[in-house]
Amino acid sequence: MAKDSIGVGLLGCGIVGSGAARHLLAEAEAVARAVGVPVEIRRVAVRNLAKKRDVDLDPSLFTHSVDDIVEADDIDVVVEVIGGIEPARTCILKALELGKPVVSANKELLSTLGQELFIKADEKGTDLLFEAAVCGGIPLIRPLKESLAGEGIKQIIGIVNGTTNFILTRMSESGMSFSEALAEAEALGYAEEDPTADIEGFDAAAKAAILASIAFRSRVVAGQVYREGISQVTHRDIEFAQRLGYTVKLVAIAEEIDGEIAVRVHPAMLPNAHPLSSVRDSFNAVFVEGASVGNLMFYGRGAGSDPTGSAVVGDIVAASRNLITGGRHLGCTCYFDKRVLPIDEMESQYYMLLSVADKPGVLAEVASTFGSHEISIRSVWQEGFGDEAQLVIVTHRGKEANLQATVDDLGVLDSVTKVVSVLRVEGEEE
Amino acid sequence: MAKDSIGVGLLGCGIVGSGAARHLLAEAEAVARAVGVPVEIRRVAVRNLAKKRDVDLDPSLFTHSVDDIVEADDIDVVVEVIGGIEPARTCILKALELGKPVVSANKELLSTLGQELFIKADEKGTDLLFEAAVCGGIPLIRPLKESLAGEGIKQIIGIVNGTTNFILTRMSESGMSFSEALAEAEALGYAEEDPTADIEGFDAAAKAAILASIAFRSRVVAGQVYREGISQVTHRDIEFAQRLGYTVKLVAIAEEIDGEIAVRVHPAMLPNAHPLSSVRDSFNAVFVEGASVGNLMFYGRGAGSDPTGSAVVGDIVAASRNLITGGRHLGCTCYFDKRVLPIDEMESQYYMLLSVADKPGVLAEVASTFGSHEISIRSVWQEGFGDEAQLVIVTHRGKEANLQATVDDLGVLDSVTKVVSVLRVEGEEE
Repeated sequence: MAKDSIGVGLLGCGIVGSGAARHLLAEAEAVARAVGVPVEIRRVAVRNLAKKRDVDLDPSLFTHSVDDIVEADDIDVVVEVIGGIEPARTCILKALELGKPVVSANKELLSTLGQELFIKADEKGTDLLFEAAVCGGIPLIRPLKESLAGEGIKQIIGIVNGTTNFILTRMSESGMSFSEALAEAEALGYAEEDPTADIEGFDAAAKAAILASIAFRSRVVAGQVYREGISQVTHRDIEFAQRLGYTVKLVAIAEEIDGEIAVRVHPAMLPNAHPLSSVRDSFNAVFVEGASVGNLMFYGRGAGSDPTGSAVVGDIVAASRNLITGGRHLGCTCYFDKRVLPIDEMESQYYMLLSVADKPGVLAEVASTFGSHEISIRSVWQEGFGDEAQLVIVTHRGKEANLQATVDDLGVLDSVTKVVSVLRVEGEEE
Repeated sequence: MAKDSIGVGLLGCGIVGSGAARHLLAEAEAVARAVGVPVEIRRVAVRNLAKKRDVDLDPSLFTHSVDDIVEADDIDVVVEVIGGIEPARTCILKALELGKPVVSANKELLSTLGQELFIKADEKGTDLLFEAAVCGGIPLIRPLKESLAGEGIKQIIGIVNGTTNFILTRMSESGMSFSEALAEAEALGYAEEDPTADIEGFDAAAKAAILASIAFRSRVVAGQVYREGISQVTHRDIEFAQRLGYTVKLVAIAEEIDGEIAVRVHPAMLPNAHPLSSVRDSFNAVFVEGASVGNLMFYGRGAGSDPTGSAVVGDIVAASRNLITGGRHLGCTCYFDKRVLPIDEMESQYYMLLSVADKPGVLAEVASTFGSHEISIRSVWQEGFGDEAQLVIVTHRGKEANLQATVDDLGVLDSVTKVVSVLRVEGEEE
């Protein structure tokens, strides 16, 4: 029987859910035109019925019970915007089992236990869409999965966390320390009460896992992503970066190298001419290098109620259209089972700042330490003199294991007082 | 009957067609995985059978006859990469009439006579996809139409022509004149033998019409796009722009203002901090401002055999999947019939360079001329003195008709020797 309307049920009505609901109401006409029939919010499950929501919905739509949505006959599309593992996982599995398409913004769940959900969606021939899970309002998942369905993606480098990008922008442009910039991010509402997931790169790692899985068509889970946050980045690192023509960003990098996958999240120096270097404040951007298509970049708001809500609505439209036309979006694309490299086997360029003794022969000792581990030095110079003497070194690309061995050996040289800092350099054409 | 493979027929095998064919062969496995069955190139129609093609296809696949493709039972998806109006138009109409999905890269046809094609596709319930028609390899059409299906788009500003962006980049960075930069573009193969369509903005206007139609859900044809090319841009304009903190770009702008549409292509000064200002060489980028999603940007290669071929393959995958799953992509989205403004009614900021007499009262006269036409001056200063005296003026936003009247009146003032140049200023937050 042809449907004359589509019923949507929201699981959750927080920042993302209220944005999606607001937006679905505001653009009801455009949505109905695109889908072919009206799309109606029929029910919203929330924990606290008394809480004021940032959307004008009839109070009778709210319920405590997720089953009132997942199992209800009048709900055609289930929107999971609760976040976290449970009850989101159980709800999504149940909805898919009933053949209902699911729209989710849940990067934590998808990047850890996504496989069983995608298998279930494929088994039932229904959609599991998640544009809002990575970089909020930026259309990214569908272009990567569908527009680039026939493209061999070589590398993705992204600024995928707005909080850390805001902090690094403030540190770079206003000379703030990390803690001052974090305090400002908190005051502006850009940082969560517990900012650990953002600051330490867990949020970015979840997104990197999802992006890598799509790009290389092989599953990567969040726990396989090497991860360093930005709390160790000092103002001095940023100053040196600026003098060298670089900008410090927290990047998520996913590469395919000889059929194996390298995925990591860490602060890195990017050349100022790299398009990602000019991505400021809380903006996100993802740079994609394809074998045929060359370099692409997607830029926009990675978080916030309105942008993320907009992405959820785009997915609701897509899922609803398929219910009307009988089609289906591309399901799980993890066709292959590629090895995910441990950090030791990955390669990067490196920047290093050393406190050294100001005497003849130091540079030769340091250089030979790099050389003995097959890390080739690209440029080096001395800063200051006497007790303040420092060496600034930028290397060519080399293996992480070799760099680590170099750092260990430098640490025991008499002529090296301290390895002050090590940062990776990315996005440079060698 | 379920299909166990999809047959593709190419109409044309030039730069775009050979790229698509090469790419479909190279990524055959990924394409088959995404579609569910293999996708095969079964026939290629070309005018000259003897010509060497830049793809390794069995010579027996080539034919002179477009009907061997359009009407053949073993061709499921028709790919039109001939360009121009005929025979492309007739072939597409015939294929759609037979219920076959069509993939086209033909901006000239779609931006002029697109309506009848989209009506036919909707009537027959099949796909007419055209990602490659605008900005080559950048996924743009599908994100705008589908991911942003529920988004209220307010404005699009794009650098949508690589040839002119290359020329302006060379003029800005190497101090070349327009004709020197054009000669270099020609030598590098970035400019066509007759560069008029690029240089004079016709190519950009066709793309602007397509983008505006999708963004505002109302048809705009290429002839409705106000258009100025870059051949009048001088090195002096670029120098002044740089001193003022701007970069000169050929931009395509589409805005919705009070339910009416303004679309135009012209050189403009953009603030250096605007993301489009750092789009260099032959790259393209499109900046989108949505009511909910905020600012988005899509960046990449707008032309070339590989990037454009990649976009065609993405559409072939999409059309083929729908043949297998029974779905359909969003058809024509021109639901409304909004008025397209004539240039006189549009608004912009303006930069103006005047040669003036170096005597008291000149500035007052000039300023009162602006004021009398309700163009408000934002900044002004004098350059040089005596016979070389010049005024540099940047205005606030004002109507084009008023600016034109101002220019006319300035031209007859005794104190103004010459209105040396006028450029629009875009993308500035006032």
